[in-house]
Amino acid sequence: MAKAPKTAIQPTREANYPKWYQAVIKASDLAENSHVRGCMVIKPWGYALWENMQAVLDGMFKETGHQNAYFPLFIPMSFLEKEAEHVDGFAKECAVVTHHRLEPGPDGGLVPAGKLEEPLIVRPTSETIIGATYAKWVQSYRDLPILINQWANVVRWEMRTRMFLRTAEFLWQEGHTCHATEQEALDETRQMLDVYAAFAEDYMAMPVIKGEKTADERFPGAVSTLSIEAMMQDRKALQAGTSHFLGQNFAKAQEIKFQDQNGQERFAWTTSWGVSTRLVGAMIMTHSDDDGLVIPPRLAPKHIVLLPIHRSDEDRVTVMEYCDSLKKELESQDYNGGKVKVEIDDRDIRGGEKTWHHIKRGVPIRAEVGPRDVESGSVFVGRRDLGVKEKSSVPRDEFVAGIGKMLDEMQTNLFEKAATMRKEHTREIDNLDEFTAFFTPENTNQPEIHGGFVLSHFHECQEVLDAIKKLKVTIRCVPLEDNDQPGTCIFTGKPAEKRAVFAKAY
Amino acid sequence: MAKAPKTAIQPTREANYPKWYQAVIKASDLAENSHVRGCMVIKPWGYALWENMQAVLDGMFKETGHQNAYFPLFIPMSFLEKEAEHVDGFAKECAVVTHHRLEPGPDGGLVPAGKLEEPLIVRPTSETIIGATYAKWVQSYRDLPILINQWANVVRWEMRTRMFLRTAEFLWQEGHTCHATEQEALDETRQMLDVYAAFAEDYMAMPVIKGEKTADERFPGAVSTLSIEAMMQDRKALQAGTSHFLGQNFAKAQEIKFQDQNGQERFAWTTSWGVSTRLVGAMIMTHSDDDGLVIPPRLAPKHIVLLPIHRSDEDRVTVMEYCDSLKKELESQDYNGGKVKVEIDDRDIRGGEKTWHHIKRGVPIRAEVGPRDVESGSVFVGRRDLGVKEKSSVPRDEFVAGIGKMLDEMQTNLFEKAATMRKEHTREIDNLDEFTAFFTPENTNQPEIHGGFVLSHFHECQEVLDAIKKLKVTIRCVPLEDNDQPGTCIFTGKPAEKRAVFAKAY
Repeated sequence: MAKAPKTAIQPTREANYPKWYQAVIKASDLAENSHVRGCMVIKPWGYALWENMQAVLDGMFKETGHQNAYFPLFIPMSFLEKEAEHVDGFAKECAVVTHHRLEPGPDGGLVPAGKLEEPLIVRPTSETIIGATYAKWVQSYRDLPILINQWANVVRWEMRTRMFLRTAEFLWQEGHTCHATEQEALDETRQMLDVYAAFAEDYMAMPVIKGEKTADERFPGAVSTLSIEAMMQDRKALQAGTSHFLGQNFAKAQEIKFQDQNGQERFAWTTSWGVSTRLVGAMIMTHSDDDGLVIPPRLAPKHIVLLPIHRSDEDRVTVMEYCDSLKKELESQDYNGGKVKVEIDDRDIRGGEKTWHHIKRGVPIRAEVGPRDVESGSVFVGRRDLGVKEKSSVPRDEFVAGIGKMLDEMQTNLFEKAATMRKEHTREIDNLDEFTAFFTPENTNQPEIHGGFVLSHFHECQEVLDAIKKLKVTIRCVPLEDNDQPGTCIFTGKPAEKRAVFAKAY
Repeated sequence: MAKAPKTAIQPTREANYPKWYQAVIKASDLAENSHVRGCMVIKPWGYALWENMQAVLDGMFKETGHQNAYFPLFIPMSFLEKEAEHVDGFAKECAVVTHHRLEPGPDGGLVPAGKLEEPLIVRPTSETIIGATYAKWVQSYRDLPILINQWANVVRWEMRTRMFLRTAEFLWQEGHTCHATEQEALDETRQMLDVYAAFAEDYMAMPVIKGEKTADERFPGAVSTLSIEAMMQDRKALQAGTSHFLGQNFAKAQEIKFQDQNGQERFAWTTSWGVSTRLVGAMIMTHSDDDGLVIPPRLAPKHIVLLPIHRSDEDRVTVMEYCDSLKKELESQDYNGGKVKVEIDDRDIRGGEKTWHHIKRGVPIRAEVGPRDVESGSVFVGRRDLGVKEKSSVPRDEFVAGIGKMLDEMQTNLFEKAATMRKEHTREIDNLDEFTAFFTPENTNQPEIHGGFVLSHFHECQEVLDAIKKLKVTIRCVPLEDNDQPGTCIFTGKPAEKRAVFAKAY
């Protein structure tokens, strides 16, 4: 048997997907664990990705009429208690501030002092504190709708953490809107799900299924939770964004009331929706390979790295001049993801090391420039979504003129690859044996690779939940689209309106 | 005596400056107090100002070679204790997380549970946690410099709070850099002060003095603190940004060590620098008037509001068409602050109320458009930095073609006004009697208006501090520029190298 080619990331995806994930994050310099349990340090390259995601999403939110604002980090404990399901959902993972001072203690070190009358919770999400504020803002139907988003950090004291996917502190945005009618709030919930899906597909090149969560997977306090679900390369599902229709639950708990056109007092209807730095994890697990990170061009902090190669000082001057002018030409090109961003890496380190540095960090395009390229007016180009050794000499003019197209092609190619992968591992299954076999690990010699997505009819009840729990499978969502053929629940035999997506999940 | 004209903001600046400040924030809808003691809600209009400040500053930081990253919200108590002066400076205002769960208590309500082994401090500033991370990153001189900035929220448990100026939680950026040599760190400290000064003057239209703090006003743990100081309209000083040279203090406390070119182990040199949402307060108190907020165009979320005036439905169509096309034309104009941003306010409320809404919120330019303006091809224009009634009819084409210039003129005018005000209330004083008289409130019938800036020679010692404390005056800074004439300390009679800026301060 031929020896497998050595890859930059060890272990490979096939050998151990979770360890590969950690190794990619390390090799690409995205983040690292901090000195604080469960909290990570997002390093510059990782943060630049998040900034790019923020910029696009922020534009989409503003486009749909939302404004940004900022609410307190702390939530009085009594606020959290007002909505019963909500507090049940978050009580177990709250960071609690109890003191507001440090004082020298009996043994010389410091001890907390200045006990607060009421403990404060570091926000795990802000429905309660924002709702209490909206109650002050809303008097009349004329004050509605309120369409606000907040970019913030939140804290959920998770016991098992994994960088980007589940951390005690994470960065996110949380939209909180308030409406006069149920229909408007429902429309908003769906609109923001569509925004998330468009972002995931058009920018992250990550195909998603839009669906509704079953009752057991709903946001604590919501009437209905919509989500987008993506398939990672290990075929597990990742919930990439949620949009909640909160009905009048929070409005009643917090007394968000208004006078309607007829002078009648009514409770408002609210929604909330969010995506987080988890999206960076989703991006990693959708596109990266055994050589490191792969970034879709539309989210890349840099599109092209120019790698000057020279031995003599004389060569250096010629090559650098060539690179400088090439950079300018490239940056003046149009690209539908915005400006073409180019870096020249002229650090004094070995060429191989330098090239691998950029491969591992997922820079979409590498272009080597040596004296011979200068002479022939060309560049030696490698695309990150193709094989590492698949490089070719391209005339300089052609490279410049075609850069927008090349980036677009890469963006499309990444989406297509992910869509094909998902298609190959998604099945409609109409009987329990087949379902069980699909999700039984003994059927594969890759213990870290998990079945995929199964679309099966189901009747929402405890019996179904018990059956899938044994297989460590969850109901990801009930797809909102192409899902109107009734059938029979494969677990209970009862009539079922719709199919759900079943999968193992992050 | 003529009756004073009624103003939109009550009380006026002259009557009660602190209350005027609160009233402007309320009338312009920038922020409000939240349900959490000392924390504010930054409302959309206020947050949009902060976003604009962020965008400009972020560009300036990147221009000077910095990258953004993100570090944990929590700091282990033991980290804070490592630098003795640092912990002394912050121990009294720390929010302390002691538990990570809520549980039902004996009387039915929730109580904190899951006590942490080591309390966590909600960051008041991040030198210690970031320094501990840098210690892991830095091994060799090749790893330096590290030039990183973080946009974040921080918490300092202040007992007396005032919106934007001093709040328990605030938003800021904190730069943290790490260098191989003392000189590089000193240069960085000064460079970032210059960045802040340029931002304050060119964008906020707020003249500032660049100076060095005296020992008693230094950042806890710093070797030297530089600051920019601005004069507010009540003649009090406001510290608007600081840049700290930390020497090797934090490097030693956290063991940030590297091997230099000769293989010798050395401690690194670090800096930190920050500005916060306090800048919004500074902007308010520099430019606003008795009719509300005044925003320098380069920071305005909207530059122009078009106010359609119509009585009949027929008029409405004509006027709105005119406004729509005018908006497009205006938005296609160049302006050195970026894009010209235009809003059409067609809400169905009384014209006067609508106009005042935008005056109070500080929109730089209001343009009324009625049927007669449409007919004559003109607009009725009011500029926020001029009198409310100083409006004039301008031909449409002229208005469009001149919009960039008009905004620039307003920007310059605001800066000039502030600079003139500061000049009028800044004095070089060379004897103590004059100094005392200048700062003695009995000399004015406006108890809220405070002397101004005094430039006097001083010899840094306790005697000086005691003398000025009685007058409630502080040393703001020792100006870095135009300050090389030695003289005699007006408090001690000792020889003095430099003058300092003395003022009452926020």
